[in-house]
Amino acid sequence: MSEYIRHDPSGRSAGRVEKKYFTFAEPPNEMVLDSGRRLGPITIAYETLGTLNAERNNVVLVLHALTGDSHVAGYYSETDDKPGWWDNMVGPGKGIDTDKYFVVCSNVLGGCMGSTGPASIDPATGRRYGLNFPMVTISDMVRAQKALIDHLGIERILSMTGGSMGGMQVLQWCIQYPEMVVSAIPLATTMRHSALAIAFNEVARQAIIADPNWNNGNYYYGSKPDLGLSVARMIGHITYLSDEAMRHKFGRRLQDRNDFSFNFEGDFQVESYLHYQGAKFVDRFDANSFLYITKAADYFDLIRQNEKNSAVDAFSKAAARFMVISFTSDWLYPTYQSRDMVKAMKKNGLDVSFCEIEAEWGHDAFLLPNERLDTLIRGFIESADEHF
Amino acid sequence: MSEYIRHDPSGRSAGRVEKKYFTFAEPPNEMVLDSGRRLGPITIAYETLGTLNAERNNVVLVLHALTGDSHVAGYYSETDDKPGWWDNMVGPGKGIDTDKYFVVCSNVLGGCMGSTGPASIDPATGRRYGLNFPMVTISDMVRAQKALIDHLGIERILSMTGGSMGGMQVLQWCIQYPEMVVSAIPLATTMRHSALAIAFNEVARQAIIADPNWNNGNYYYGSKPDLGLSVARMIGHITYLSDEAMRHKFGRRLQDRNDFSFNFEGDFQVESYLHYQGAKFVDRFDANSFLYITKAADYFDLIRQNEKNSAVDAFSKAAARFMVISFTSDWLYPTYQSRDMVKAMKKNGLDVSFCEIEAEWGHDAFLLPNERLDTLIRGFIESADEHF
Repeated sequence: MSEYIRHDPSGRSAGRVEKKYFTFAEPPNEMVLDSGRRLGPITIAYETLGTLNAERNNVVLVLHALTGDSHVAGYYSETDDKPGWWDNMVGPGKGIDTDKYFVVCSNVLGGCMGSTGPASIDPATGRRYGLNFPMVTISDMVRAQKALIDHLGIERILSMTGGSMGGMQVLQWCIQYPEMVVSAIPLATTMRHSALAIAFNEVARQAIIADPNWNNGNYYYGSKPDLGLSVARMIGHITYLSDEAMRHKFGRRLQDRNDFSFNFEGDFQVESYLHYQGAKFVDRFDANSFLYITKAADYFDLIRQNEKNSAVDAFSKAAARFMVISFTSDWLYPTYQSRDMVKAMKKNGLDVSFCEIEAEWGHDAFLLPNERLDTLIRGFIESADEHF
Repeated sequence: MSEYIRHDPSGRSAGRVEKKYFTFAEPPNEMVLDSGRRLGPITIAYETLGTLNAERNNVVLVLHALTGDSHVAGYYSETDDKPGWWDNMVGPGKGIDTDKYFVVCSNVLGGCMGSTGPASIDPATGRRYGLNFPMVTISDMVRAQKALIDHLGIERILSMTGGSMGGMQVLQWCIQYPEMVVSAIPLATTMRHSALAIAFNEVARQAIIADPNWNNGNYYYGSKPDLGLSVARMIGHITYLSDEAMRHKFGRRLQDRNDFSFNFEGDFQVESYLHYQGAKFVDRFDANSFLYITKAADYFDLIRQNEKNSAVDAFSKAAARFMVISFTSDWLYPTYQSRDMVKAMKKNGLDVSFCEIEAEWGHDAFLLPNERLDTLIRGFIESADEHF
């Protein structure tokens, strides 16, 4: 453990974690997807932190956003420089306390971080799926994750939380498997994408599709569409921040120069930041996964899922206690979208609290250290205990 | 004239207009640019509507935005289906009344609609400039336009107006040639781009640069970077609307289908809209011009231009009467940026009025028919008459 302390002077790191894999073992060894197509076998990569207690009533499920993965906290090895994506929230004594709770996080179906996705080998051909991979929905992702939870012998989940697309999965869980969810914390999320959110995703997809290396999804045995994926990522990063966040973080400061370059290599810090984010992303993410997962997020529509086409009806089967949280500067899923969700929950008589957190960092705020958020999540999960 | 009435049932079209060209004739037949480089000969494409009166005191200069051109109103021919870009504002009896005023609009330096730009022939090589074209600034654009105004024998301009990058040119004119500007109406504009605005432009530029057909700007004798330019345009169109505008215009409506396609061809109306805008744009616009002009807009910084690095000092030489107009839903150049401008003008004792117009259409609002805007502009130009 001492080795981890150099990463985390507070000594509150979750320590070493291991990526594990669950493959659907039951015949017919496949899943029928929302699209009607069949997919199998399916493998889900997951990680766990803390200890499952004997009563199996201390499970907290964390659901990741668009480009996240199962590595929610801790380190893979002693030489690992970077902890999981929500290490500030998940760990011993943290907002989601791994001394008390058994935390599960898995990579989404369609992803590229260990779960079955378009970069996986299609057993029918022996080659990577590419565009032969079927379209998956948020509901499909949740269905695959439910199989993992069953496999772990978990019948009820004390609390689940996730931001952005993670929050969509939280909502979907509460509707699809209401008897399994005691409490839920949708963060910075929405019941369905606005036209603006779809627009950003579609332009990002088009940037990938425009890259000749994308080659209609068949790039696994040649050059990858890095330039297109990099532009897609840059578009994403604009939406994760906000006007205010960018003003504070970058303003009009120049990068490593005192005057304009008068060329196209980039002058401003904000440009360098975007270039860096774009370049870094292509090393870790699969372009086809980006296409599939953004599409799943665009398709997600809690309101359209039910026959009456009403938000109220969407939550008619839900039974969880909810705490909905939005952030003032989030312009991708603005607060009004959370308020709509809360209204629909309340009309069903659900136990729901709502909090809009003052934060200048835009949509990304849910990922950043925030004492208020820690306190809210800690308190809410503790109180959920009483309702198990 | 009768032929035009079929386009414009109100009979208020400016009718037939003609694109004209002015080429700097004076030796040394070139301009020294802000970058220090020289450019020449320079041609500026322009159009005029209405009649210059004998006193030459009825000139209204209209300045176009990023991808606009000199064709501000009226039609080029009787078979022309589409009038100029601001036909709802400029014409007989309209907000900018061509029965009273002599309206001048020219294509910016660096553009691709008749003025000298990267697609023009470089006399030194006999080939198109491409990236050999020097970087131009908003101040360079204004300097070139000033030569045109001199050429037309105009000494003072009754009023000038423009939205977005057109508004930047308005501000620059008022500072660079204060004695020539009687009144000015900056619309939906800013003293300098925020990090957010730079970020959008840079990602759009990267989409072009990522297209292998761009070929470092040398594509004039082969395939054009249409896919990259199309993505760039789609990014632009997102910024021209707003969350609210997109919700009203598209919502989550599907395009020509009742259910999801489960493929990547596009399901939603907003996607079709963006595809259409992208595809249409590549037919009329030069990718290198897009790079140069967006860069000029990013470089524009009224505050940095003066030694004291203060917005107040920026307007110390300005003498025009100002009417500054912003739009509530414009998130590219939000109202706070107009307010900052107005404050700086007022601290210089300038005669300035400010109006924030309630409009849901985002940044694009300045281009759309708006009775309030018509009335404000009409009244302001009339009152400017008294101050000539």
